[in-house]
Amino acid sequence: MGRKRAGNNKFLKQFNESMILDLIRTHRAISKAELSQITGLSPTAMGLITSSLAEKGYIHETGTGESTGGRRPVLLELKPNSFYTVGVDLDVSYVKIILIDITGSIIHECSFTMFEEAGAELVLQRVENSIENLLKQFCIPDEKLLGIGFSVPGMVDIGSQDIILAPNLGWENISVESYLTQLSRLPIYVENEAMASAICEEWVGCCKGLDNFVCINIRSGIGAGIFTGGRLYKGVGGSAGEVGHIVVDENGPKCGCDNYGCLETMASTHRIEERMQRLIRQGSLSSLNSCEQLDEIEIEAIVKAAREGDESAKGILMEAARYLGIAISILVNTLNPSKIVLGKDFIKYADLVINHIKSIVDRKALKAAASKVEITSSALGEKSSAMGAAIIPLKKLFGK
Amino acid sequence: MGRKRAGNNKFLKQFNESMILDLIRTHRAISKAELSQITGLSPTAMGLITSSLAEKGYIHETGTGESTGGRRPVLLELKPNSFYTVGVDLDVSYVKIILIDITGSIIHECSFTMFEEAGAELVLQRVENSIENLLKQFCIPDEKLLGIGFSVPGMVDIGSQDIILAPNLGWENISVESYLTQLSRLPIYVENEAMASAICEEWVGCCKGLDNFVCINIRSGIGAGIFTGGRLYKGVGGSAGEVGHIVVDENGPKCGCDNYGCLETMASTHRIEERMQRLIRQGSLSSLNSCEQLDEIEIEAIVKAAREGDESAKGILMEAARYLGIAISILVNTLNPSKIVLGKDFIKYADLVINHIKSIVDRKALKAAASKVEITSSALGEKSSAMGAAIIPLKKLFGK
Repeated sequence: MGRKRAGNNKFLKQFNESMILDLIRTHRAISKAELSQITGLSPTAMGLITSSLAEKGYIHETGTGESTGGRRPVLLELKPNSFYTVGVDLDVSYVKIILIDITGSIIHECSFTMFEEAGAELVLQRVENSIENLLKQFCIPDEKLLGIGFSVPGMVDIGSQDIILAPNLGWENISVESYLTQLSRLPIYVENEAMASAICEEWVGCCKGLDNFVCINIRSGIGAGIFTGGRLYKGVGGSAGEVGHIVVDENGPKCGCDNYGCLETMASTHRIEERMQRLIRQGSLSSLNSCEQLDEIEIEAIVKAAREGDESAKGILMEAARYLGIAISILVNTLNPSKIVLGKDFIKYADLVINHIKSIVDRKALKAAASKVEITSSALGEKSSAMGAAIIPLKKLFGK
Repeated sequence: MGRKRAGNNKFLKQFNESMILDLIRTHRAISKAELSQITGLSPTAMGLITSSLAEKGYIHETGTGESTGGRRPVLLELKPNSFYTVGVDLDVSYVKIILIDITGSIIHECSFTMFEEAGAELVLQRVENSIENLLKQFCIPDEKLLGIGFSVPGMVDIGSQDIILAPNLGWENISVESYLTQLSRLPIYVENEAMASAICEEWVGCCKGLDNFVCINIRSGIGAGIFTGGRLYKGVGGSAGEVGHIVVDENGPKCGCDNYGCLETMASTHRIEERMQRLIRQGSLSSLNSCEQLDEIEIEAIVKAAREGDESAKGILMEAARYLGIAISILVNTLNPSKIVLGKDFIKYADLVINHIKSIVDRKALKAAASKVEITSSALGEKSSAMGAAIIPLKKLFGK
């Protein structure tokens, strides 16, 4: 039994350290006395744990707090720039890399574009080079890097972390790690992009401390990251949150999944752009009629036109929003979440359509659930998935 | 600190006792040595915990297990008939009461009908009388009854446990406890009927040990109980699982929620019966044409006719199943569950339509998720909600 009990004690020590580290994180700065009070651990035990965390370099002492009578207590906080993680957002023809430290602060971010059918080998080679350069530039040795997280617009196997299918990248059954010749020495994590965004919103965004919420990302596809009971919900195979394939109009166009009128075919950025292009070709009155390259009309131009009063552009965004509202109503009835956060390209036109979405949800979802949900756009902009991917190795450290 | 630490120890003791009790339950019969091995707790600590559980009357020794060399170990199991709970399923004009013991075995069940608009006071008075008689009949003193669970076809407030709205009962803002003049001396729990069924399937039914599954009940309404990460998922206000209001046909009839073509308006028992009655009125060829009281054609008669080859009856059931398939596809994409269990009235015609539902889900849901889900009908029959309600007080004892 001796060995087994020692094993249990080691596990307990690690559990306690992670818990205390997470309390320090969520409080930003906190005294040992307060930590004792919250956890019920004795001051002696707390002293041992915080010393161990300081020795490992995760925390340090900072300033002093309010006195409650005696000496003003020394506060503990996470030690900035002590440990790092990297997050990589792999999107269609576009890669974003973010370096953050243990506190979740962004140290550096960069991005590059790739031609569309570059393939996993070429893309991941370039990612690898960029990260190696980044580590050199910031003089980060391996032992200070907690890991690298990848965000992909597709399904990730819950066990192997292989990318099962990322249709918009054209990737199928890809093991990210197997393409990394150098970086595979470090812990590698792979996550669906909407789930990565949800992780980010919960850690540093607008869903801190929320148990039940949904993040919906709108870009080339539409997907959701769902939190239930305070945890990312992945489903049995890791493919939960595929809300882009909720049928919102049976008479809609055919989707890649072989159904008709999936949300993705009615409200993704790509489909919004296509619809605008088609409208102009059909001779609709629009300020975008003067565009020389119809195929190059992108969401930014459509949003700009809508803001300047272009009724066609406005109509297309409102129609996409209506379909989003229908799908969100289903999620509100089914999941009764406290928040729905819309992100990625949606942020570009959120102010124009969000009230329309809210009014549809108020009408279509049951009152009890609709009255409890806040629908909002993400404040994290384009970075939520890269940030979320970077947070995954951090979460392991904090026992999450 | 002394008092605080004593408090922690008490909490730890209770936590350990609940954990061991649950291990004994899930293993049915298990030795102390095996319990030590699983938990890592020392034989001495385990001896103290199991003695305490035996003293309280929850467990007893039973037979002996396989020897692994030395003496054959004594096995521990839950002690039948030591403690009890009661579950009450309140449905439209029908009440079911089940008495179970600590092992989950049914000791007694009974049911009675009420006229449809009986109202909460009358119904709950009659329930109270029945339970008091039951306790007398089986000589169960209060200290042996862990509590009473109520299942209702409606939304239950997650905090107060008040029934917010049970539209088919016509109940709104009802505190069950306040109507119980005698039984309020016991712990009272109130739960949505589909959630109660899900609790039951996980505890004693076909979802034992499953983390992520959905139970859908079809009766006067349609609702779901969802498990995520091994726990019942209730949402922020307790109204998760309202899948009866997923719009499955925009051209369908108006629903009580003011939308058109909700699943409930296309596939609930009530609507199946209504459609059959209308079809006959319109002169459709059916073996049910000879019924004298059209308004009294019930689901059982429709199912019987379908089994005997009546094409109209079959067609109506298949149509309802198709809409169920559409809604289930959305749940499969969104929640990626390992199982979908269909219960209540559905059981009566499951064999006629379940393959149709499976084929729709295979076609409409994404392959990755559709290939991982098993769609089945509940084996618990009409009792799942009453049983689930009875299990709620048990779960508290087992620390669940």
